[in-house]
Amino acid sequence: MSAPIYDRVALIGLGLIASSMGHAMKKWGLARSIAGHAKTEATRAAALELGFCDEVFATAAEAADGADLVVLAVPVGAMGAVAAEIGPHLKLGATVTDVGSVKQAVIEAVAPHLRAGIEFIPGHPLAGTEHSGPRSGFATLFQNRWCLIIPGEASPEAVARLRALWEGMGSNVEEMDAAHHDLVLAVTSHTPHLIAYTMVGVADHLRRVTESEIIKYSAAGFRDFTRIAASDPTMWRDVFLTNKEATLDILGRFTEELFMLQRAIRMGDGEELFDYFTRTRAIRRGIIEAGQDTAAPDFGRTKVDEK
Amino acid sequence: MSAPIYDRVALIGLGLIASSMGHAMKKWGLARSIAGHAKTEATRAAALELGFCDEVFATAAEAADGADLVVLAVPVGAMGAVAAEIGPHLKLGATVTDVGSVKQAVIEAVAPHLRAGIEFIPGHPLAGTEHSGPRSGFATLFQNRWCLIIPGEASPEAVARLRALWEGMGSNVEEMDAAHHDLVLAVTSHTPHLIAYTMVGVADHLRRVTESEIIKYSAAGFRDFTRIAASDPTMWRDVFLTNKEATLDILGRFTEELFMLQRAIRMGDGEELFDYFTRTRAIRRGIIEAGQDTAAPDFGRTKVDEK
Repeated sequence: MSAPIYDRVALIGLGLIASSMGHAMKKWGLARSIAGHAKTEATRAAALELGFCDEVFATAAEAADGADLVVLAVPVGAMGAVAAEIGPHLKLGATVTDVGSVKQAVIEAVAPHLRAGIEFIPGHPLAGTEHSGPRSGFATLFQNRWCLIIPGEASPEAVARLRALWEGMGSNVEEMDAAHHDLVLAVTSHTPHLIAYTMVGVADHLRRVTESEIIKYSAAGFRDFTRIAASDPTMWRDVFLTNKEATLDILGRFTEELFMLQRAIRMGDGEELFDYFTRTRAIRRGIIEAGQDTAAPDFGRTKVDEK
Repeated sequence: MSAPIYDRVALIGLGLIASSMGHAMKKWGLARSIAGHAKTEATRAAALELGFCDEVFATAAEAADGADLVVLAVPVGAMGAVAAEIGPHLKLGATVTDVGSVKQAVIEAVAPHLRAGIEFIPGHPLAGTEHSGPRSGFATLFQNRWCLIIPGEASPEAVARLRALWEGMGSNVEEMDAAHHDLVLAVTSHTPHLIAYTMVGVADHLRRVTESEIIKYSAAGFRDFTRIAASDPTMWRDVFLTNKEATLDILGRFTEELFMLQRAIRMGDGEELFDYFTRTRAIRRGIIEAGQDTAAPDFGRTKVDEK
């Protein structure tokens, strides 16, 4: 049990990430009290029942009122509206953060609603599962996961405090600027997810191969694509709409490369394929050497060590 | 310990699959003796040292001589030359099988070299790891994995015997025709692998994002792509060159779908993205319901339960 880092934390949106934060803050005593807001009565009731919030409110403004830390944990496309609602109710000196997968668009949407004296520090925990909703959270979700934070104009004290919260929940924290964050994530996460969605979509309407066969033989490579493609549709719609530029950039590069390999297959150019496949081994070696691989390579989605 | 199913088995090629078969046949007493052939002296020595072969030979013909079952476990592109070499030395009534990832091309390459009285039953165990070579094999590689066999013109008795061998090594055996096999695998394995290779290639030459960042944040989705893209280059070159038609067909469908989603991103069509991402959840549900998911979703590559 650490000393509480914040007196009052408000979780706006009570899905996988916020509920996991709630459980983690409770488990390690990082907040004196946790207020929560979700749109539906059922979600608010679940938060109280599961105990990851002390109080719940029907509006974001009420939940944010008097909080030292407000965590925006709604889909990226909803951040602006929430910020507009809570802006006038924020305590001077409060920190506002978020957990969205895109950072430039969140800053554009949220910052205009925060008056001087509010510390805004966007964040992005690189953690998740294929499940969503208030009952999917667990305290150890962030253990040994990266959390990227964007210090921007915030005071060093406020940044240090938010960093301490994430470290208290088990994360490794890195600071980054928003544009670079969006590019890095476009490569390591957003484009791979879109590709997985696409491949599953192809299989879905391929009538010569029955669905039962695709499912039966999915372990041959396809299964992990389906895991990713089962992620929350609202969240991912917003990611692609709001990280449009970087995603389209990486997608353009991807299709150029794919066409080159496709042409090599069509022309029977074995040498080109062999050389390409040999080069890609180097990155894999780097990951193994960096200790970033685990026995459960699942896009960071395994629910481990629940207690 | 079962009764031996074959008296003398010859493994031609001593990489991951053949060495795992050797270990499995030894562990469960499925062959009275195992002969092996590999091109290099070092690989042959490893086979004897690790004990998954009883004898090794410098030529495929010597290894195959007198065998009841000959397993062609070389890259798909090398199958024809091996069949030509061993053809004249095969015992009448012997069964020839293979473990290649493509079936029509293997049949075209191998069948002409086998005279009447030889039973040819192509096979494909859907199992593997990212590692290769004689030291990468282990007895339990095929446990609870599918093995697809192509009965073709072979006698029911010969098919039943080969099926018993694979079942003895822990596999679930299914029969299928060669063209259908190649299409199913193009969807569930070959195209996903090519896509993974491509995505890793994109990351590799992207200079604005440093390699260390890609590696560091790879768990956000990219890591599993690198695992696949580290697979044996020779094997995968041959897969794409020999399953050209089905792979190009699926790749064509894939790029059509991808362009549709890319356009939706560019046009800001959130409804189309949301609907697409919602549809892809159904296949995932099917996989979970069919019990084809495990806690280690790794494209079937985890080395579990070694003993």
